[in-house]
Order: sequence, then C-alpha cells, then structure tokens
Amino acid sequence: MSGNTIGKIFRLTTFGESHGPATGGVIDGCPAGIRLDTEAICREVENRRAVKARHSTSRLEDDQVQYFSGIFEGVTTGAPIGFLIPNQKQDPDAYNALKTTYRPGHGDFSWHRKYGIYDYRGGGRYSARETLARVVAGAIARQLLQLQGIEIQGWVSAIGKVVMDGFGPYPKEDVLSSELRCPDPEYAVRMSRELAEAISEGDTLGGSVTVRVEGLMAGLGEPVFEKIEALLAFAVMSIPAVKAFELGDGFTGTTLRGSQQNDPFTRRNEGTIGLTSNHAGGTLGGLTSGSPLVFRVGFKPVSSIKKRQQTVSHEGEPVALDLSSGRHDVCVVPRAVAVVEAMTAITLADLWLQNRCSRLAPEQF
Amino acid sequence: MSGNTIGKIFRLTTFGESHGPATGGVIDGCPAGIRLDTEAICREVENRRAVKARHSTSRLEDDQVQYFSGIFEGVTTGAPIGFLIPNQKQDPDAYNALKTTYRPGHGDFSWHRKYGIYDYRGGGRYSARETLARVVAGAIARQLLQLQGIEIQGWVSAIGKVVMDGFGPYPKEDVLSSELRCPDPEYAVRMSRELAEAISEGDTLGGSVTVRVEGLMAGLGEPVFEKIEALLAFAVMSIPAVKAFELGDGFTGTTLRGSQQNDPFTRRNEGTIGLTSNHAGGTLGGLTSGSPLVFRVGFKPVSSIKKRQQTVSHEGEPVALDLSSGRHDVCVVPRAVAVVEAMTAITLADLWLQNRCSRLAPEQF
Amino acid sequence: MSGNTIGKIFRLTTFGESHGPATGGVIDGCPAGIRLDTEAICREVENRRAVKARHSTSRLEDDQVQYFSGIFEGVTTGAPIGFLIPNQKQDPDAYNALKTTYRPGHGDFSWHRKYGIYDYRGGGRYSARETLARVVAGAIARQLLQLQGIEIQGWVSAIGKVVMDGFGPYPKEDVLSSELRCPDPEYAVRMSRELAEAISEGDTLGGSVTVRVEGLMAGLGEPVFEKIEALLAFAVMSIPAVKAFELGDGFTGTTLRGSQQNDPFTRRNEGTIGLTSNHAGGTLGGLTSGSPLVFRVGFKPVSSIKKRQQTVSHEGEPVALDLSSGRHDVCVVPRAVAVVEAMTAITLADLWLQNRCSRLAPEQF
Amino acid sequence: MSGNTIGKIFRLTTFGESHGPATGGVIDGCPAGIRLDTEAICREVENRRAVKARHSTSRLEDDQVQYFSGIFEGVTTGAPIGFLIPNQKQDPDAYNALKTTYRPGHGDFSWHRKYGIYDYRGGGRYSARETLARVVAGAIARQLLQLQGIEIQGWVSAIGKVVMDGFGPYPKEDVLSSELRCPDPEYAVRMSRELAEAISEGDTLGGSVTVRVEGLMAGLGEPVFEKIEALLAFAVMSIPAVKAFELGDGFTGTTLRGSQQNDPFTRRNEGTIGLTSNHAGGTLGGLTSGSPLVFRVGFKPVSSIKKRQQTVSHEGEPVALDLSSGRHDVCVVPRAVAVVEAMTAITLADLWLQNRCSRLAPEQF
Repeated sequence: MSGNTIGKIFRLTTFGESHGPATGGVIDGCPAGIRLDTEAICREVENRRAVKARHSTSRLEDDQVQYFSGIFEGVTTGAPIGFLIPNQKQDPDAYNALKTTYRPGHGDFSWHRKYGIYDYRGGGRYSARETLARVVAGAIARQLLQLQGIEIQGWVSAIGKVVMDGFGPYPKEDVLSSELRCPDPEYAVRMSRELAEAISEGDTLGGSVTVRVEGLMAGLGEPVFEKIEALLAFAVMSIPAVKAFELGDGFTGTTLRGSQQNDPFTRRNEGTIGLTSNHAGGTLGGLTSGSPLVFRVGFKPVSSIKKRQQTVSHEGEPVALDLSSGRHDVCVVPRAVAVVEAMTAITLADLWLQNRCSRLAPEQF
Repeated sequence: MSGNTIGKIFRLTTFGESHGPATGGVIDGCPAGIRLDTEAICREVENRRAVKARHSTSRLEDDQVQYFSGIFEGVTTGAPIGFLIPNQKQDPDAYNALKTTYRPGHGDFSWHRKYGIYDYRGGGRYSARETLARVVAGAIARQLLQLQGIEIQGWVSAIGKVVMDGFGPYPKEDVLSSELRCPDPEYAVRMSRELAEAISEGDTLGGSVTVRVEGLMAGLGEPVFEKIEALLAFAVMSIPAVKAFELGDGFTGTTLRGSQQNDPFTRRNEGTIGLTSNHAGGTLGGLTSGSPLVFRVGFKPVSSIKKRQQTVSHEGEPVALDLSSGRHDVCVVPRAVAVVEAMTAITLADLWLQNRCSRLAPEQF
Repeated sequence: MSGNTIGKIFRLTTFGESHGPATGGVIDGCPAGIRLDTEAICREVENRRAVKARHSTSRLEDDQVQYFSGIFEGVTTGAPIGFLIPNQKQDPDAYNALKTTYRPGHGDFSWHRKYGIYDYRGGGRYSARETLARVVAGAIARQLLQLQGIEIQGWVSAIGKVVMDGFGPYPKEDVLSSELRCPDPEYAVRMSRELAEAISEGDTLGGSVTVRVEGLMAGLGEPVFEKIEALLAFAVMSIPAVKAFELGDGFTGTTLRGSQQNDPFTRRNEGTIGLTSNHAGGTLGGLTSGSPLVFRVGFKPVSSIKKRQQTVSHEGEPVALDLSSGRHDVCVVPRAVAVVEAMTAITLADLWLQNRCSRLAPEQF
Repeated sequence: MSGNTIGKIFRLTTFGESHGPATGGVIDGCPAGIRLDTEAICREVENRRAVKARHSTSRLEDDQVQYFSGIFEGVTTGAPIGFLIPNQKQDPDAYNALKTTYRPGHGDFSWHRKYGIYDYRGGGRYSARETLARVVAGAIARQLLQLQGIEIQGWVSAIGKVVMDGFGPYPKEDVLSSELRCPDPEYAVRMSRELAEAISEGDTLGGSVTVRVEGLMAGLGEPVFEKIEALLAFAVMSIPAVKAFELGDGFTGTTLRGSQQNDPFTRRNEGTIGLTSNHAGGTLGGLTSGSPLVFRVGFKPVSSIKKRQQTVSHEGEPVALDLSSGRHDVCVVPRAVAVVEAMTAITLADLWLQNRCSRLAPEQF
C-alpha cells in the first residue's frame, strides 16, 4: 500500500489498525520554532471522540497521545514529530464471526481483492480509528495557522433529512456546546429526533459537515493541478464515508447564471480590495481570493446497521449478517467535524508553507 | 508555482499560457509497448474543441499535436512523451483593456497577489486552454486502460436549471452525436432552450458532467489518503470552473438510511462476487468495488458575461467592465466532457500501474 | 525539516532523536504477502550494534523492535508498518557541557543556524542512532529481495590507512565472524593494529565499506535522473559521516582508456547474454546490466575525539573542548556495514517494485 | 519510465531523444519575479557544446533554445517554463548498423531488457544530448542563486592519468579561456598531450570535474535522507558516464585521523563564526556549514572507441563492432563542466527554496 502520506512540505504519514496495539503517525516538515500547546491537541482528540450519547459507539477509550520526537523544551525543532496513541481495548475475538464474511458497505471485499489478505478485525486499516492520527497532526497544523491569524471552524450542517444551509459564521462555543456539533439549537433538536428515529429502527444516518476558514490571505494554492479546491477535495474525500464535496455555492451554483454567480470586486473602507459576495466559496483561479473559504462535505450513512443483511462469504455463499451485538456509531457526522477540520488544517498549513516559495523576495510574502 | 504535475507513476506535467506561442506537456511513466493510436488522440482533442454552435467560443483553432519523444516506430518506448500544441491565433492586443482591471470570477486578482505579476492576456496560465494538454495525456492514458478492458464515458447531465439524473450507461455515439454532449434527446432540447435564453440575455450557464467507468477490477486505489474517490475528486476539481464533486448517490445519499445505502453482495451466475446495487458509486473502503465507477462534476457558470459588471482596477478604483466584444463560451460544460474524461483516465491509469506493486507475486495481479 | 522519507513505492519515513524516548519509522508500500522473518530483522539490528570491542561505543542497549501495524498473522498486509525502538539509556545531563558549544565535525552549528534551535544532547536528530530505523526497514526490504533471488553483501574494505581493494565475493560468514567485518584475516589484523594505535592516541579513524549485490536482473533503475547509481549514491551518502561513493572502477576507472574500461558482451554457455568483466560495476545507461552491482563507500573519521580541541561557543567565544569522558566509537565503519546494506536494500526494493510498471504486459516482468 | 523529473520545489522534467525532432524540458516551481538573462543561458549552452577541437564530436549544432511559457515581459511569472531545443541534424540511417548489436559500455542492452524496445539511434534517450535541457534549467537556477550571492564554478581537474588536486578557487575566465576547461595552464598542456595520445590510438579518456560553490549560508540541506551531499551526489551521479563522487577530502579523508579531519570553528574578525579549514568540503550534519562547498566528480572514459570491439547481437551472436566512422567525443569531461555546474545549480536552488520553510518566522531566513 502506498498512499499513507499526505502533503508536500508539511507531511503526515500514518499507520495503525483498529485492533492492533496502536495507531500513530509522523509529521515531517513542521517548521521549527512553534511552541506547541499539547492541551489544545488533546482537546481536538477529545472532540473527535465518541460523544457521550446513544448515537455514538460505546467503545470508550482514553486516547493518550505519546510524542517521541521533534519537540525540544516544548518547541518544535524542525525534526519529524513521531507520535502514537495506544489502542487500549482490543477485543479481536468479537470479530471472529466476520472472518469469512464480506460486510456490505465496508472495505472487506475490495481490500481482500487488492491484497489477498486483510485484517478483518473491526475494519483493520480502513477503520475510522485511522483518523485519530489525522486529528493530532491537524491540531499541530492548526497551531501553525493560528499564528498567522487563520481560523478553521466546522459544524454539522445535516443529519439525515435535516439539512441546514448557509456558511455561518458560528461561534466555536456554539458548535462545541452542542452534542451534535450543530450550532443552531432548533436544527439540533430536529437532528436529535432524526437520530432517535433511526436508532429505534436499528438503522443509521449520514449527513454533512460545513467548514468556514477565516483570515486567509489571497494567493494560497498551487496551480494548475494543485488548486486549493482540488487539494481540499482530495483531503476530505480521503476521510472514510465521505462521498461528496462542494465549494461555495457548489451544485446549486451550477444552476445559476454567470451574472448571479460572479462575485464583484470592491474597494473596502480600509483601502484593500475584496469581494462583496462569496458564491465562489473563497477561491478564484485555484487560489484563495481573500474571502472566507467555505465548503460542504457529505457523509454516507454508517454501514454497520443493526438490521439483518444479506451478503456472501469469501467463497460467495449467501450469508445472513447480523451486526446488532457490535458497538457502532449510528451517525459519525458529529465526530467527523474534528476530522474534517484536521484535514483542512493539514492542507492549508502545507499550502501556506509552499506559498513562501512563490516569489523571489521573501519580504514580499 | 508548483503543482503543474499530476500522478505518481503515470505523470503529466503541463505548461503554456493562453496567448503564448504554445501549450504542451510531458508524460512520464507511460509503460513501454503501447502502439499509440494518434488519430484517437486527435478525436479527443476535437471533442474538447468548440462545438460549432452559438454557445461556444468562436476562437477556431486547428489544434495540431506535435510529438517530440517517447514514441519509436509508433510504439511507446518508456521514455517521456513530450508534446506541444501551437497556439495559432494570438491577439494579445485585444486584452489591453484588461491590463489593469480585475475581472470578476477570474484568477486575475488572486494570481496577481500570489506572484506579483500575471499574464493578463486571456487568462494566461489559468485559461481553460491549459486543459488541452490534459486531453492529449488523457487520450494516451485511455488507450492504456482500453487494453485492460476499461472504458470511460462522460456526458452532460445538466445545463443551467435542466438537470438529468442517473448514471447511464449511454452509448458513446449518443453522446458524441449530440452537440451538447447530452445523450437524451429530450433533455438536449431543453438544454438548448436554456442556452438560447441565456445567450439572449448576454448571460452564461454552468452545469454538470456525469462519468461512468466500466471494466474496472476490484481493488484499485491506494489507501489511506489516496483513496480512489479522493484522487478522482482531486483530478476533476483541478479543472477550471469545477466547484463540486459527488460519487454515486453523493449528497442525496447523505439523506438515506444505512439500510437503503448499503449495496448488498451477491454471487453472480458465473460464480463471481458482485453488488446488486451501486449507491456507493463503485468504491468500498477507498478502493474500487468492481461495480461501475460513477460520479458527477459540477461547473459554475462561465465568468465572462456580456453584461456590464462593476469591478475595480489594480489600484482599487471602481471600473465598469464590458466584455461583450470578446470571444467566450456561454457554457463550457459540453466541451468539458472531454476534459473530465481525460482527468479520469490519467487518474485510473496511474492507479492501475501502482496496483501492480500491491502484492508480492505478479501473477496474482 | 523535510527529507525524512526515502523511496517512491517502498517508502521509509523515520523519526527520533538520540536522547528522546525512542527512534522509529513507518514503511509504506511494502507489498502484501511477505511472511516476515522478525528474527532476521533482529540479526541485522544486532549487526549494527556496537561490536563488543574497544573501538566501539560502550553504550549498550538491547535494541528491541516493536511493531505496531502492517503485519497480520506474520504476513505483511500492504498496510504501513509502524515500528519503534525505545532508547533505553538516556542520560541527557551528560551533555549539559555541550549546551552552548559547537563541536567540530558535528552538525551543531549548521543545524542551529537552520532551525534556530537544536537538541544538543548527543547529536539529537543527527546522531547516528537515527540509522537504527534504516536497518529495520532495510531488513524488510532485504527479505523482499531475497524472495527474488537478490543478495546484498557488504564488508569493511578499509580502516584508516589499511585499504583492501577488490569486489569479492566473500562468504557472509567470513564477514560476520570478523569483529571488524573484514573477511580477509590478514587485513583484519592490520586494521586491528591501526585501531589500537588510534585508540592509544585518543584519536579516531575512518574507512570504507564495499558492497556486492548478486542476483539482479538487467534493467533496474529509472532513467534519466533516477539512474540506479544516482539513487544508490543518494541513499548511502545520506548515512552520517559518508563523504565518498564510487561504482565499479570508480575514480581509478577515470584514468583508464575506453578500451580498458568497456566491458565486452558475450553469450554465456546457457545462452544468455552477459559481460566478461565488470569495470562498470554492474550498470549500463543508468540501469543494472545483470552483472553484480559493486560499489565503495567512504566514511570520514569519527568527529568526537578524545584530544582537546579548539572551538567556539554559540556567541563565538573560544572554548577548549574535551570529549574524553563521553562514549564514542573510535571507528564506525564495522557497524556501518549493516547500515550501508540497509540503504542498498531499500533502494533496490523500491526500484524492483517500480520496474513492474515499465512495460505494458505484466507477464514480461 | 519514471525518473525524468528532479527537484521538490524547483523541479525540472526533461524529454527528448538524440535523434528525435527535439530535446526539451519544463521547469516548474521557479519563483516569480526573476528577470531572466537569456543570453547567459545561451552562454551556458555554448559552454556545453563541442569545443572546436579534435577531441570532441564533430556534430556541430546551433543549439537554439525556444521558450514557450512562464516568462512575461522578460520576467518569470511563477508559471512553468516550457522550452525546447530542436535537433537540427538527424541522420538516423547512420545507425542502421547498430539496430541489432549491443554496444559495449552503452545502455543498449539494459534498456532493451527493461522496456522490450529501444531507440538504437545514437543512444536515444540515454544519449548525452539529454543533458542539454539540464544546462538550460541549470542556467536559470544559477540566476536565482546569483541573486542571493551564490556562485558555482567547476573545472576539469583530471583527464586520463593527468590529475590535478585542490579546490581552487580559480577565476571563471581562466576556466573558460582554456579549451579543456582546465584553469592551470601547465596541467592543461599535459592533458592535451594525454588527449593527443589517446586519439592517435583510436581510444578515449575519462577524467574529473571539480566544483566550488561560494556564498552559501549555513543550513542548506534537508536532513535526514536529503542531506545536501546526498542530493548533490544524486544529481551528479545521474549525469551519463559519472561513476564517482567525493565531497571535500573524500576518499583521501577516510585515511586521516579525526584530529586531522575535523575543521575547527573560530570567530572571524567581523564577528561571525566560521571554520579554519575545509576538509569536510562545506557540510556538517548534512547541511551547509557556511564554508565553500567543494566536491569532485569522476567520469569514465567514453564508451564509443575507434578500436574494433567484440560484442554480441540481440540474439547473442558474436559481432565485431567498428564505430570508427561515427562522430564521438574522445573525452567528454571539458563539455561536462557545464552539465555538472547545472546539476549543482538545480540542486542548490531547490534547497534554497525549501529552506524558506524551515522556520516559523520568514524574517529569520
């Protein structure tokens, strides 16, 4: 397998399976001189954890990040940051029933075909537990960005059929104080009802996360292939269960006229040039425009349902699959906010560093 | 600027501006031994060209591809394939009026901010003319894939408010015989009307392209970050004007229940294992599932409208911009089908080659 | 810091400082299906360890490799292999004296200039302890190569002024049974004397490692920039203290005539084509020729000497530096054999995998 | 074939065969804002050309560089620079005799084995003509470096058995005014005699190029694997016919004691810290030390000799090969100076750009 590394300058490589001893990663290319706030990293890890509610997995782990390198007296040294989070509760035997059965909606079949071998215990490498290392790296990338005045905020904008439009902004507290990470209390209530209904049916839900990034200067992104929207789409589409991505007006914008979609330039009071609307979602020509970057990410419903399903064994024999005894999220979208933010942060930190090489004179950056 | 290369094994690097002497590229990593059908490449280039209709740019160029290397006696040698398409009609003076004005919806402003300099003539490097080299490389990638039995077919599934659902299949002839690249005649008529209306108003339209890939084995893709859907999203979101991507049921699927979205496995008559539905769009766990790969790509409306727009000069002074004398597409979506297909082919060829390294024994591939 | 990853398909990323809690790495791209011999990995780690002799560091550590992922029931799964070797003896206080002094021959000064911060304890990230992760990855790469019939053997060919010419082959046992890793007993005795003399003077020595690789098919390497000799030079020149590399006749060959240096082709008895001499060292046109790959790697003498040295503090004040109390190798070359072999294995495994993508038909590989 | 790209930020991709229509390349990642001196590029191309003397190939071409992109009004725009040099004299028929014969010392055999097909005409892709694109890119990289006060100077330090030690410096004029690129007139005379002798025997010669780089700040290089000496070795070992590389004292230094080899730090009169000797050749811990970077590159003798050689056909039949009618250099080393300088410039420009990302605050660079 290739593909376990992301980024060009700020680079994350991850490893670890759901039921192995640990999951972890290496961050290479983080600049020297950042005084790391490890508590802030913990908070991001916490945000990704199962919310203490019925709709999330009951697998309770105290995810402790161990750092091995790259930090000296609390400051990044420029050396790679190796880290690891032990998997505390391993119950591989619980998965014996899945040893020879392909679960619908999971990677069992395609991974088996690719590699001729796969770790059937809880998803192995394609378990969502893999995203834990992303959140750690994202939290470090975020600290780099915050020093430049760049802030990333995501929230749950849809669960099942309850869909909330718009691009905020919402105060961070309003997002975090909501168990479902939905900053609008009215929508949060409707989402809760949607969840309750799905749970009662032994079924699962999908939804959407919306992200807003403020404080970006114009010019981030590396055309032609590495447009900022292309790299963001890549980063978030690599999160398990993501099936859709749209920037700004997205698919809705495809039905508009050019005269409606174009964002006009204007001179702001302070003399700078900006846009009076943000249909484009914060990019122009593949680079940031200086407007907030806003985009929406769609997650399919969780594949592990508590309803009996028809599937096949490795040999193709029909099997009736019952996952009702396992621990599974009913909807991952609230937990996924932290992961989407992390992938956004990793992408932007990398582009922010690359941007230093765009022009001749460093004083122009 | 970095970012002008795509791919890991099968790699395309492009260069060229809209009003420079030529646009071109280098394909590195194309395996030796492919007898190239250069006429098929020409046909793809032709498919990307302006359809002879009111809705497309009147800039008529006879795009002739010149090959410089990597082909010996009609067969690829494994050496890089350098190629070039001269820009025959250069009328840079036509753009003098744009020398100091930022056009809404274009990259002028963000590129100027990034590089401190930009080629204002017709979009320069961020002109859609840049996609010509992609189509050439895509046509070569497609030939590699066709030798493996893999076929890519795209079509126009939306223009403006006329939206056609579904994932086909449609016969290639039905797509190509339609001026708008819409294989359903009824929808094609409605799209034509939509276009006529926009033209009469001096306005422009966006739309969607849907793609279907058949013949893929299970297991393509390189987890974790380089999932096939992530790489496809990256590839097509790098096309100018693309704002949205969804795989299979996409955003609609996020509103379904798990029991509705999961595709059940079954044993087919011939004994192989397959899926009885394709909500997932052809991937599981980031790898192909063996089902057709189906996805949808959303394009914003063309930014160059014939209506007067308010904008600013480089110094921030208000300017009334009138682009009515220029040659611009009213809707790029029909021409974009060839580009989306090309980016799909480049991505799949690269993953097909990478897949050869997944397992120990080559005979297992 | 970038640059902590090597390889394109078979990729190693490392982390860890000399006096941090651990050193480790992630191997991505190792094909699925290899039944790993972890004892063989241990033996390589052991080969790199301090030989129990006066000339090597007295820092005795029982280097235990912990694996976290990528191996399931003893077989590689295609997932990344994360591993870690704890640093058992950490005595950072021993380095307090070096906190503000630049040691001659070490990276203190240049790293401080680059990053504005550096871990002064025992070399930190630029300590030779970093090579431990290389040896682990190299041992895995070697197993992949051995399955293809490719064997790598290195030995000490020079210590100080005692220089042994030639490219073997030597039996592996003869190398390993020698404390100095020199398979020729007569030379080994002379090298021992050279060492004894240096030790008595509180001084240190350099030397050379020669490597011979057998069993390579013709055609490995990826021209133009990624010639096999270029990648090998890159790989071994990245080992701390290496200052020189030569392939085959190397610098001596530059003084020969073409008629002396050209290796003639011939048909061997079994009908295959081969070379009757190996001045070129096993490559032609940047690819393997099918002859053994033979090259020589030169190490400078160890920088930490027990003689008093003049140097400066961070502020540039003159300082008389005395390292006589520290634990340092007198000559690293015997231990370096394992490291040079590891870097060779990593490079060849990567190229062997890449080579699978060179031609259209897999059956031709 | 992969491997036709070099560099991470400043990247060169090349294409073209010896007897195809053209050779060329694409430079991606060159920062915007450099006013290019195209005449200086021409001079470098000229320096690489056959010196008008008996010892060089009689193939006289007026190598004209055509630029296609990335330069606007004489200044780099940040967009990729595509360029091409037509191959003016193509006489493929002259190579018909080589169609089925493997030439000793050339890549014919190994390339044929790798790809199953090769362009036998004059070396095809593995001809030294490929280095022309390197010289163009190197000349641009050099201009970037010169703006930072970094100067690269190479010279011929050995032809055949005439070997000149030392690391200069020598005035650029003294190098260029010498037909053999040897700045010491006495050595130049001896080298000329060596050449005359080889020519009279129908034989060929190798030799060495030494390079000295001045004006480098401390801290360039990207540890661990991407040490500056590793990347330089990689870059120059990728030049056709190079077999050896050594930095500073190199192989000779391996025979010294640590107390002789260590370069002491001192405070210079102006208050900066520097080294009082340069045995290390300008690097410490994989990064530049601030001292001049000095290294030596060894070239094997030219493979195409005018003496009859025994070799085999594709089928393994013995063939007596006579290349006496072809146009071949007797010694490439004088022409290679420009190529070695170019590869050095490309490597340093890339590392200089990467170095901008090492620390948090740009003002510290």
